[in-house]
Amino acid sequence: MNETKIICEEKPKLRNPVLVAGLPGIGNVGRMAVGYLVHELKAKKFAELFSPHFFHFVMIHEDAVHVLRNEFYFYNGKERDVIFLIGDCQAFDPKGHYEVAGKILDFAKQLGCREAIAIGGFATGKIRAEGGKQQGEAKPKVLGAASGEKLSKDYEKYGIDFRIAGEVGTIVGATGLLVGLSKLYGMKGLCLLGETSGFPIIATDPNAAEAVLAVLQKIIGTKADTSKLHGKVKDMHEFLKKMEELQQEALKQMKPQQKKNEELRYIG
Amino acid sequence: MNETKIICEEKPKLRNPVLVAGLPGIGNVGRMAVGYLVHELKAKKFAELFSPHFFHFVMIHEDAVHVLRNEFYFYNGKERDVIFLIGDCQAFDPKGHYEVAGKILDFAKQLGCREAIAIGGFATGKIRAEGGKQQGEAKPKVLGAASGEKLSKDYEKYGIDFRIAGEVGTIVGATGLLVGLSKLYGMKGLCLLGETSGFPIIATDPNAAEAVLAVLQKIIGTKADTSKLHGKVKDMHEFLKKMEELQQEALKQMKPQQKKNEELRYIG
Amino acid sequence: MNETKIICEEKPKLRNPVLVAGLPGIGNVGRMAVGYLVHELKAKKFAELFSPHFFHFVMIHEDAVHVLRNEFYFYNGKERDVIFLIGDCQAFDPKGHYEVAGKILDFAKQLGCREAIAIGGFATGKIRAEGGKQQGEAKPKVLGAASGEKLSKDYEKYGIDFRIAGEVGTIVGATGLLVGLSKLYGMKGLCLLGETSGFPIIATDPNAAEAVLAVLQKIIGTKADTSKLHGKVKDMHEFLKKMEELQQEALKQMKPQQKKNEELRYIG
Amino acid sequence: MNETKIICEEKPKLRNPVLVAGLPGIGNVGRMAVGYLVHELKAKKFAELFSPHFFHFVMIHEDAVHVLRNEFYFYNGKERDVIFLIGDCQAFDPKGHYEVAGKILDFAKQLGCREAIAIGGFATGKIRAEGGKQQGEAKPKVLGAASGEKLSKDYEKYGIDFRIAGEVGTIVGATGLLVGLSKLYGMKGLCLLGETSGFPIIATDPNAAEAVLAVLQKIIGTKADTSKLHGKVKDMHEFLKKMEELQQEALKQMKPQQKKNEELRYIG
Repeated sequence: MNETKIICEEKPKLRNPVLVAGLPGIGNVGRMAVGYLVHELKAKKFAELFSPHFFHFVMIHEDAVHVLRNEFYFYNGKERDVIFLIGDCQAFDPKGHYEVAGKILDFAKQLGCREAIAIGGFATGKIRAEGGKQQGEAKPKVLGAASGEKLSKDYEKYGIDFRIAGEVGTIVGATGLLVGLSKLYGMKGLCLLGETSGFPIIATDPNAAEAVLAVLQKIIGTKADTSKLHGKVKDMHEFLKKMEELQQEALKQMKPQQKKNEELRYIG
Repeated sequence: MNETKIICEEKPKLRNPVLVAGLPGIGNVGRMAVGYLVHELKAKKFAELFSPHFFHFVMIHEDAVHVLRNEFYFYNGKERDVIFLIGDCQAFDPKGHYEVAGKILDFAKQLGCREAIAIGGFATGKIRAEGGKQQGEAKPKVLGAASGEKLSKDYEKYGIDFRIAGEVGTIVGATGLLVGLSKLYGMKGLCLLGETSGFPIIATDPNAAEAVLAVLQKIIGTKADTSKLHGKVKDMHEFLKKMEELQQEALKQMKPQQKKNEELRYIG
Repeated sequence: MNETKIICEEKPKLRNPVLVAGLPGIGNVGRMAVGYLVHELKAKKFAELFSPHFFHFVMIHEDAVHVLRNEFYFYNGKERDVIFLIGDCQAFDPKGHYEVAGKILDFAKQLGCREAIAIGGFATGKIRAEGGKQQGEAKPKVLGAASGEKLSKDYEKYGIDFRIAGEVGTIVGATGLLVGLSKLYGMKGLCLLGETSGFPIIATDPNAAEAVLAVLQKIIGTKADTSKLHGKVKDMHEFLKKMEELQQEALKQMKPQQKKNEELRYIG
Repeated sequence: MNETKIICEEKPKLRNPVLVAGLPGIGNVGRMAVGYLVHELKAKKFAELFSPHFFHFVMIHEDAVHVLRNEFYFYNGKERDVIFLIGDCQAFDPKGHYEVAGKILDFAKQLGCREAIAIGGFATGKIRAEGGKQQGEAKPKVLGAASGEKLSKDYEKYGIDFRIAGEVGTIVGATGLLVGLSKLYGMKGLCLLGETSGFPIIATDPNAAEAVLAVLQKIIGTKADTSKLHGKVKDMHEFLKKMEELQQEALKQMKPQQKKNEELRYIG
């Protein structure tokens, strides 16, 4: 297995589907928002993505060995269908991000997808009160960046703040690449970013996820109840935090260990 | 040679073969247990695996140059046949682990294999008395994780402890990936892990290997005498320790060396 | 997307075209000189190059998501046509430099190109007065290195200093490889290097760019007014400096983060 | 160019040719010995090898741009022909070593080669008197390791010391892999190692090269005068030392530079 592979158990027939991606990232906003929606809408898993650009460890999950993966779900909506993408991780190297994003877009295109929305977090560096919404606290902003200048107009009616060019330098990883590369696959794309404090990845921010979901549901036409989101977050948080730590640990173990003072002799 | 390659000297005809992999890892439990079995059962070598994801040095072994490799042996058992996989090393990078595991599973599938068992160590962090079994000492536990939840039931009768989800986060490298990816190749898989102190890799733990062998032999239906295991371990230990040190050294040499205070001029 | 890709919107018919490459590098001499020429000559963009060897982040640019890329422009000159190559970045790893340079040369060859000129900076280590030309200051030298010894004679009439073998060790990255590999694609090549202080990449040196442009325009037969160059540099400088910082930051984030004092347990 | 490439200008007809490789390495023994032989025998260059696993800089050499490469020469001997391989460098990563060695062996096989001899240095860690042979000084030993145990017998008559298994752990890089992998290409192979102090690579040791040449010439049946070797070494030394420094510098530049105290904001 030396290339990213999508194992498709069932090829659903979809009407004008939109791809909605929520992978682990800053504040885990995307992973949490889309994971919650998949659960609430009872979307159906139909394909899995494996990659040699994911880490080389497996997790023990409910007595079974679990290789790191991204998962595709579909949902038959009233007006159009949705393909949800969630996962354990993103690629760990730059080349992997391009390979994985390319495979996802290629697969989505085959399924008739013409629009890709990637959900992420936008780190402000300011801490909000943790653990839940507080009375009188301002709702986090939802920022947007489309795959082309004119496209941002299509999305403006949903209450997205598109004036981020001044504030925001870059979007790192899959969230940015899925949208940025969507043009090459004949799609239009949108990054939807929930404002969060952004102590990266360790934190999970349900307020940002909730704000993003409010906008996202308007765009894709779903009506999931988001009142249970804050309750769900705790479990997700533990899992995502562990995943992040394991990957950091795996990165470390790839570096040479301190050698004993024994000497080795080499020739060449 | 820019891809993992299996050189097959002879394609044996095998009845319902099971793949049993024992590669270097924590406590070298897998490498030692399976290496011992290969020797005792006089299993026959029939293929070798080379990989650009193994280190780029050769060893001098009995006056000859030895490129790092993994080796396949077969054994004609009474009820079913066994393919043993042992080797000098695992891949040194994540991508390599996926590539090597994929090649092994692909090859095993071609040989009619429907089941893969990978042997490894489980590090407790607690030191036992070294050097041999002591009177009254508890036998090391043998932990298991199957490639699917229901599959663990198939193996429960062999005295494997499947309640490891709580204790164990991950299985790193080939042991985990061979089992985790086995599903994608139409196989069922099992990780069999011997409890060991786990001061990683430097140590070799014959007690853990013995405990694992007791369970493994029941599953694959072999009856090798394990009484000579403790004696054999010393030689193996020296070899495996040296291999590990050489690989750590090679990792180090891939980093830039300290430059002299001479200055270089660059353009670009 | 696991290979460098050129998306060609329009395949222009070109008469004896010459490729002129100016990518970010020391003093940003090449990027600035060629970028300015593209703008002044109103050259037309016809193709874009994307690569998994570019960094895995996108930039927000005028409300839209911008994946890092190199861009091809063409210009119909009086005597011959020109293909200009400019871009956001170079590959971040050695293998990527070879892959990208190979793709560019292959593409240029298909367009009928028999000559490749790559513009770069030559770092002297000495600081000149910054911010503009000063009265009485010596003009920066323009150094050259051709793809073959005899070829340097073809270019000598343009006032290029070819006696750099003694002073200059190497040319790093695309500037050197595009010219060095041009022979393998049936082209002749020339590195044109503007002398600059060379506090690498952060600085942008309009004087060096101006000196190089004077020589380059003679070779390719264009007559753009370079009087506005110093004014243009400030904007470019900000953009290029930011790009460089973002890439350095991305490099850093690929290294493992400091772990908390929580312990993880591994098996394998 | 994303794979190692051999550009063959002329395909010579060769009688029972033997491949003799001398690439930069410890003490530069191989590079120096084989480079000298190529020069003395006026062997003819017929092919060049380029690789994305060589560093991404070019050198300025006699006013021309020189991409790093390995070079093939042939020599029509009295009894059999010889293919010499020398070069600027080896691959900089493990995967590259395998890819390059595989390409070389594949190419040699196509030319009818059935035997590969790789020359290298063996580092003792002890310093001899530098700069030339001294009266009464013992000649450096020439150690050997063949690609198979029985093959060492074929070579014993040439005065090679094959008892190195005890002393020598590994042979790093091309010297080892060319011989180790030769079996997979239907060849027999021999590593020929000249004993040297081995302060790696910076030093060039003409005594070791001379000792190796005495043995090598007996094996391949050439009779070049080696009296000019000590004089030639000085020039080679400067060149090879510079190459090594440039590569170390390039390795360093691939690491992130220290960032200023300016803060960047990321989203994802």
